[in-house]
Amino acid sequence: MLAAKIDPTGQILTLTTPDDPLRFHAMWLRDNAWDEDTRAPGNGQRLVALRDIPADTHITDASVNGDAVEVRFAPEGKTVTYDAHWLAQNAYDRPAPVQKGWLSAGTEPWDARLMGSVPTGDFAAMTRDQRALRDWLALVNRYGFGKLENGPVEDGALFKVVDLFGYVRETNYGRKFEVRTEVNPTNLAFTGMGLQAHTDNPYRDPVPSVQVLYCLESSAAGGENMVVDGFAAALRLRDENSDYFTALSSCCARFEYAGEDGVCLRSRRPMIELAPDGELIAVRFNNRSLAAVTDVPFDEMQTWYAAYRRLGEIIDDPAMEVTFRLEPGEAFVVDNTRVLHARKAYSGTGTRWLQGCYSDKDGLRSTYAAMCRASTQEAAE
Amino acid sequence: MLAAKIDPTGQILTLTTPDDPLRFHAMWLRDNAWDEDTRAPGNGQRLVALRDIPADTHITDASVNGDAVEVRFAPEGKTVTYDAHWLAQNAYDRPAPVQKGWLSAGTEPWDARLMGSVPTGDFAAMTRDQRALRDWLALVNRYGFGKLENGPVEDGALFKVVDLFGYVRETNYGRKFEVRTEVNPTNLAFTGMGLQAHTDNPYRDPVPSVQVLYCLESSAAGGENMVVDGFAAALRLRDENSDYFTALSSCCARFEYAGEDGVCLRSRRPMIELAPDGELIAVRFNNRSLAAVTDVPFDEMQTWYAAYRRLGEIIDDPAMEVTFRLEPGEAFVVDNTRVLHARKAYSGTGTRWLQGCYSDKDGLRSTYAAMCRASTQEAAE
Repeated sequence: MLAAKIDPTGQILTLTTPDDPLRFHAMWLRDNAWDEDTRAPGNGQRLVALRDIPADTHITDASVNGDAVEVRFAPEGKTVTYDAHWLAQNAYDRPAPVQKGWLSAGTEPWDARLMGSVPTGDFAAMTRDQRALRDWLALVNRYGFGKLENGPVEDGALFKVVDLFGYVRETNYGRKFEVRTEVNPTNLAFTGMGLQAHTDNPYRDPVPSVQVLYCLESSAAGGENMVVDGFAAALRLRDENSDYFTALSSCCARFEYAGEDGVCLRSRRPMIELAPDGELIAVRFNNRSLAAVTDVPFDEMQTWYAAYRRLGEIIDDPAMEVTFRLEPGEAFVVDNTRVLHARKAYSGTGTRWLQGCYSDKDGLRSTYAAMCRASTQEAAE
Repeated sequence: MLAAKIDPTGQILTLTTPDDPLRFHAMWLRDNAWDEDTRAPGNGQRLVALRDIPADTHITDASVNGDAVEVRFAPEGKTVTYDAHWLAQNAYDRPAPVQKGWLSAGTEPWDARLMGSVPTGDFAAMTRDQRALRDWLALVNRYGFGKLENGPVEDGALFKVVDLFGYVRETNYGRKFEVRTEVNPTNLAFTGMGLQAHTDNPYRDPVPSVQVLYCLESSAAGGENMVVDGFAAALRLRDENSDYFTALSSCCARFEYAGEDGVCLRSRRPMIELAPDGELIAVRFNNRSLAAVTDVPFDEMQTWYAAYRRLGEIIDDPAMEVTFRLEPGEAFVVDNTRVLHARKAYSGTGTRWLQGCYSDKDGLRSTYAAMCRASTQEAAE
């Protein structure tokens, strides 16, 4: 049975639930009211600013009626009804995460053992069937990458992939870029040499958070694609040597690309990025574009370089990598803030032609979340 | 006179300069070599990974010849020449910043006193004259916003503004969006009500880091545009009450927009974002889209709300705001990770029509930096 009680100051509401008691502050409750004077009924946007809520807000009365929790606020004299489930879901009366490098719910680190079950979707099915798309987006969210099969073999087909979930992020490389051998490459990605696993464009801030690579021709030997979970690599580093993890997450690296006329891209971000409360939110790793690192204190530079070396060794460890070959009409999508990608060297005979483009996670996550919401609503009807 | 000496382990090179002695680690020097086996001559990308540099790298010899510092590395037996000026510019042998909330060089906080000298550029001049563009981009970098006058009055003219420095970030709001009174607004920005100063789309991650608002019609009374420097506001908060600054920078807020079918955008980021070494890098502030904040520990929630209230009061303080009116053919560009914008309420008589779009700072900063590089090269020739 639910019960609600107020502390003597009216500042704290305690909701006694079948599990733990949950405490809420008066100001938090008032600011999160969902009545139509506080939130626009259509779009849910808040109609008031905190300045419109009195600083001396307190609770004068609280009661429970089934799943409805009714709270009366002074000095406004306003009564607001909350759904008890919503309160339980949004409760903040819980221990803070202790260890740095925690992952958000639904994020699953992986290593080479994922090879047998590479997250894969059927492009043709996804364009017809929203559930097929939703299932594939769920995999991309969970693992930070997804392969896609059975797509058209045509110039620009990669845009049809982006259309499934979001929008192209255009850059100085264009809306899309071609990845094939060039005689005078301006960027090493366009040569046949193998590349160490990396995230793309760490010299860009904000970094493009999604990358799509789409295969149009693939008769050259070699050139397999490889992905490594940067989150799993960072966590392995932490578990091996917490000083190394601290060095790479508490000091900013610098990245730069200035290899073309009119382009001079620079960023200053850590290789392992944590939210202020320790969530692991991004990895940047790219030997080609690492600039002179000048924000590591002198006394920590030796440790920082040892940590960078060890992270590279972990990333290079075959036990971390998942490899697959892209055939024409196949593509893969990576969360470029998490999953590193690489390709093995390929030979000059035959052709290998991929098209790449960038996109962003906001669209991908929004599309997925909206699909989940829609299916919950359907189930409820 | 320059001199170079090595410590007994060969791990540290000390460069004696007319100012301070500067120390560099052997590994840092080797990784930052600019010889053609280490860096591609054309584009400057690093050709080696750290795994290609022996872990036991040390310096066996160092000498100075004019501005050239010659360093010999073992076990590779490789000699690399460094420019002493480059070494001095990239030296990291200096005290780390002490106070949190420091600003990068060239970033200047401002308040209402900037009103008399709003950073402004002439669109027509900028399309003809690279120096005019460079000067305006310098202002945008320094102050986080810039006004633009003398542009064409035509649908989509805002794209010509973006073309000056970067690329449009397309979102679910389109490549551009219309800001005018609508009968059934899906978003409060499209009504005539005044809006508290805010940053746009904090529910998006990555957030669009540049916004362009371009005026096409403006005969309605009111509706002046107003900007507030979020960095100046955050620093004022810090100087008034460091606990408040800590609360907003060490705890994540949550933002959400789910007001349309197929859209469910959510983010988890602090209102005041610091780099791990304390640089102030972003402000997010938007009362309309703040979601239930659930990542603040229970015991800190009261302080967090007090801090959020005080930050809002600072933002609302007229002493912080710069106001200007956009006439048709005028626009403004804001760094949406720093500068808040607002509009005063406007009346329904007459019309007010703005077009808006998003872009990103990587392009803007790159264009500016490349222009500075080009002008340095011209000056040297």
